[in-house]
Amino acid sequence: MTHLEARPGEVELDFDPATETDASVMFIGHIRSPWKRGDCPANIRKARERTCEAWIELDPRLVQGLNGLKVGQQIVLIYWMHETRRDIIVQSPRHSEGTRGVFSLRSPLRPNPLAMSSVRITSLDPDRGNVGIDAIDCFDGTPLVDIKPWVPTIDLLPDE
Amino acid sequence: MTHLEARPGEVELDFDPATETDASVMFIGHIRSPWKRGDCPANIRKARERTCEAWIELDPRLVQGLNGLKVGQQIVLIYWMHETRRDIIVQSPRHSEGTRGVFSLRSPLRPNPLAMSSVRITSLDPDRGNVGIDAIDCFDGTPLVDIKPWVPTIDLLPDE
Repeated sequence: MTHLEARPGEVELDFDPATETDASVMFIGHIRSPWKRGDCPANIRKARERTCEAWIELDPRLVQGLNGLKVGQQIVLIYWMHETRRDIIVQSPRHSEGTRGVFSLRSPLRPNPLAMSSVRITSLDPDRGNVGIDAIDCFDGTPLVDIKPWVPTIDLLPDE
Repeated sequence: MTHLEARPGEVELDFDPATETDASVMFIGHIRSPWKRGDCPANIRKARERTCEAWIELDPRLVQGLNGLKVGQQIVLIYWMHETRRDIIVQSPRHSEGTRGVFSLRSPLRPNPLAMSSVRITSLDPDRGNVGIDAIDCFDGTPLVDIKPWVPTIDLLPDE
């Protein structure tokens, strides 16, 4: 996931999106996981196939924001893949032939390194700001930027 | 959606998350919609109930990132609700009784004002960086921060 050198066929931007400061993000907490570099599942599906104790440690100043969440509820986490390059606009994924634009991929290397997964709340300690989750696919200590309830009428397309 | 004054029962943080600059976001483009303040659907479901021509105007430097996307495909947009307050941690939504923590709500007012909707691509002009979408629930000109393909194994929980 370091991906320090572009692979054959990949296209690098001639600027680094990290230097474009249109707005600022606050890290609202961090994700705790068993995963370190070289041993991290490639996605949440693969993370679920392995034993995985994972939880959120929310910034203590924000714990009131958890009111209303419940154990068993499905939530969406948005997290910040802070150790990745942001300037590879066309990529050559390991899992498929050829190259594709970053917006057609779930790669963590993107202009804004936002990752997003649907998970289930397995435990909740609002006073300490700890939220247990059923699985996650990022390094221990990855910064968290948002928690949202999963809402079918927003997150699924209507039947056509 | 301006929500300049906290409502009864709401809780304001004693700091403004906008001043916590843990990382910087690049606006990768803007969302074009018919909606202006006072006439914006409250969510994507309500937006779909109204005639809505909507599209993305991507930053011209990033158009190669669209390679691989297709008309008809379901994508997730992450956009930046740049005109909202970020410091109301417990909120009193108009649509329900009582107050709830922001992380249990899809409110645009949140420490990081990220909004997220699932939409379908209706047209694609990659050279110009224009992507037509079936509906959207934000003001004309709202900054866009990410486009991701919707992937069932990431965005849906497995059957249990």
